[in-house]
Amino acid sequence: MQQFITDPAKGVPFLGVDTMAKVINTVGITTIFKELVKRLENDFLRWDEFDKSPRYASHSSQGVIELMPVSDNDLFACKYVNGHPINTSVGLQTVAAFGVLSDVATGYPVLLTEMCLLTALRTAATSAMVAKQAAVTGASTLALIGNGAQSEFQALAMQTIVGISAVRLFDVDRNASTKTATNLAGSGLDVIICDSVEQAVDYADIVTTCTADKRNATVLLQEHVKPGMFINAIGGDCPGKTELDEHILVKADRILVEFEPQTRIEGEIQQMTSDFPVTEFHRVLKGERKARDNAQQLIVFDGVGFASEDFTALVYLRDLLKQQQTEQLQLIAQPANPKNLYGLLGS
Amino acid sequence: MQQFITDPAKGVPFLGVDTMAKVINTVGITTIFKELVKRLENDFLRWDEFDKSPRYASHSSQGVIELMPVSDNDLFACKYVNGHPINTSVGLQTVAAFGVLSDVATGYPVLLTEMCLLTALRTAATSAMVAKQAAVTGASTLALIGNGAQSEFQALAMQTIVGISAVRLFDVDRNASTKTATNLAGSGLDVIICDSVEQAVDYADIVTTCTADKRNATVLLQEHVKPGMFINAIGGDCPGKTELDEHILVKADRILVEFEPQTRIEGEIQQMTSDFPVTEFHRVLKGERKARDNAQQLIVFDGVGFASEDFTALVYLRDLLKQQQTEQLQLIAQPANPKNLYGLLGS
Repeated sequence: MQQFITDPAKGVPFLGVDTMAKVINTVGITTIFKELVKRLENDFLRWDEFDKSPRYASHSSQGVIELMPVSDNDLFACKYVNGHPINTSVGLQTVAAFGVLSDVATGYPVLLTEMCLLTALRTAATSAMVAKQAAVTGASTLALIGNGAQSEFQALAMQTIVGISAVRLFDVDRNASTKTATNLAGSGLDVIICDSVEQAVDYADIVTTCTADKRNATVLLQEHVKPGMFINAIGGDCPGKTELDEHILVKADRILVEFEPQTRIEGEIQQMTSDFPVTEFHRVLKGERKARDNAQQLIVFDGVGFASEDFTALVYLRDLLKQQQTEQLQLIAQPANPKNLYGLLGS
Repeated sequence: MQQFITDPAKGVPFLGVDTMAKVINTVGITTIFKELVKRLENDFLRWDEFDKSPRYASHSSQGVIELMPVSDNDLFACKYVNGHPINTSVGLQTVAAFGVLSDVATGYPVLLTEMCLLTALRTAATSAMVAKQAAVTGASTLALIGNGAQSEFQALAMQTIVGISAVRLFDVDRNASTKTATNLAGSGLDVIICDSVEQAVDYADIVTTCTADKRNATVLLQEHVKPGMFINAIGGDCPGKTELDEHILVKADRILVEFEPQTRIEGEIQQMTSDFPVTEFHRVLKGERKARDNAQQLIVFDGVGFASEDFTALVYLRDLLKQQQTEQLQLIAQPANPKNLYGLLGS
């Protein structure tokens, strides 16, 4: 960290969208998923070292704006992220994000970056990390319900980390499925566009729901679910925004969550009573609990996205950037005499 | 707002420190204080329209990192700010800040800006707005206890809004006082550097305490205080960080605060019981309460800085910038098809 923020007078390293895309292409998305999952696991194992709180959410009739802060003894991370399902109708993204990583010792930012792409990477890596523990051994088929901005990242992370070979796509917007299939051509995945949820989940070992509607939807019904399935439910992440038929939660043998206090507010389990049993995922990695006892169990990951995952992604990005030149932003004033801020006005 | 974010594809308008300094010099700091106070008053008058919460604070042994979000129906603002008193010993500022203003309807940022200078302006403008109501009529002398980064802004705002003509400076660091006196030369203010708090507060109608120690200090003692004084205590703004002898709070005829739930946590009144009576300042502007009943009363403003003040400053800045070209940051991905985020990787 100290070598990265070589000189606050030179500004805060900044990564825009084009540069982020270049970094991803240079490193390679497969390598990134492998490294991110490794780092996510390391950080979930040291879960107790993080200063955690449910994210701050500012709701409006159109959507939500959220702040996701978290810190350990050395670094502080915060992501700004929105969720506006109607945005795509005006050519904007449902989820747009940027974030900052800071030095706890000084409070100074050490990295400011776009996090649209980075969030897609860390969300997919988190899903894959959980699937690695919770999917049946030899899981080969992924059903992707919702083929928006997150879908390709999900498919490729599951391929890289879990070894799936087939993806079955469904979206109410057929064009979204076509887009995803086109993007996944050449990935080595066997991709099939389906006409219904029923058709998509048939044969699936892993079912990922990532839809964007801000309402209580039932994207997945109880009759879609089979023994042995791992359901990676990541689209329900707001009060009043869920994807699963509540009977699936009742039926599930285990519900995995990231940070229980936040998931109670935002996750699928907001449909259930506050004592409905869940398992925080870090306990699985620590060996305190199993993600799955046998190949017949139905396991659900009620993923909402937790700040520590952004922390992990930001630290990884910072480490990647240490070897590179980055743009420097004059985000923080740096008067020669720190008590002479007024002197910057030069009057 | 709509005309400002002309095209998200062109990025997010960004204001760095040098550009901010240029804007301040071009508009003129006196004009800025006048306009800011007017806008602060307007926004305090519509207090009930804001979605308010105490700020998020991440404390460490070295300092604090805070997030200050607030929104109305149209705009969302959030400031990132730290407080690290030891920073000046390594050439960094105690308080560094940046912020974002966003469109509630889409969740997209419409302005990203440095807020070291902007915070100094809004803090001084807030103090002056309160002093305008709470200082005795004809107040002419300001004592400034603590002559760090905020001091010149305080002096100039009090001159512009309240009409003070003399400033008496004291700081344990004499160089800080000299710096402030030098910066204020030519302002038209009669500036005197004092050797003690006693000497500084003598003759003062307004006493501003703005020190940075992160501990329970007693910068101002009960014997320093006289009938008729207005004490603008803005340096105590953290749990465990206060400036006033608690007897001053007991003695005061009225304690004005910004947002009571936050001030209970952070302000001077953290020394008192949770039912110690305070008056939220918006009630004074609304005419529900008086800031002062007569020229003999001792009035304290327990200022900690509230998010709505940053909101006001950011909206003012946005309006100033509407006439200008600004740097555009690629902070948010803007794929041609918003569902095709992956397409940005061009693979």
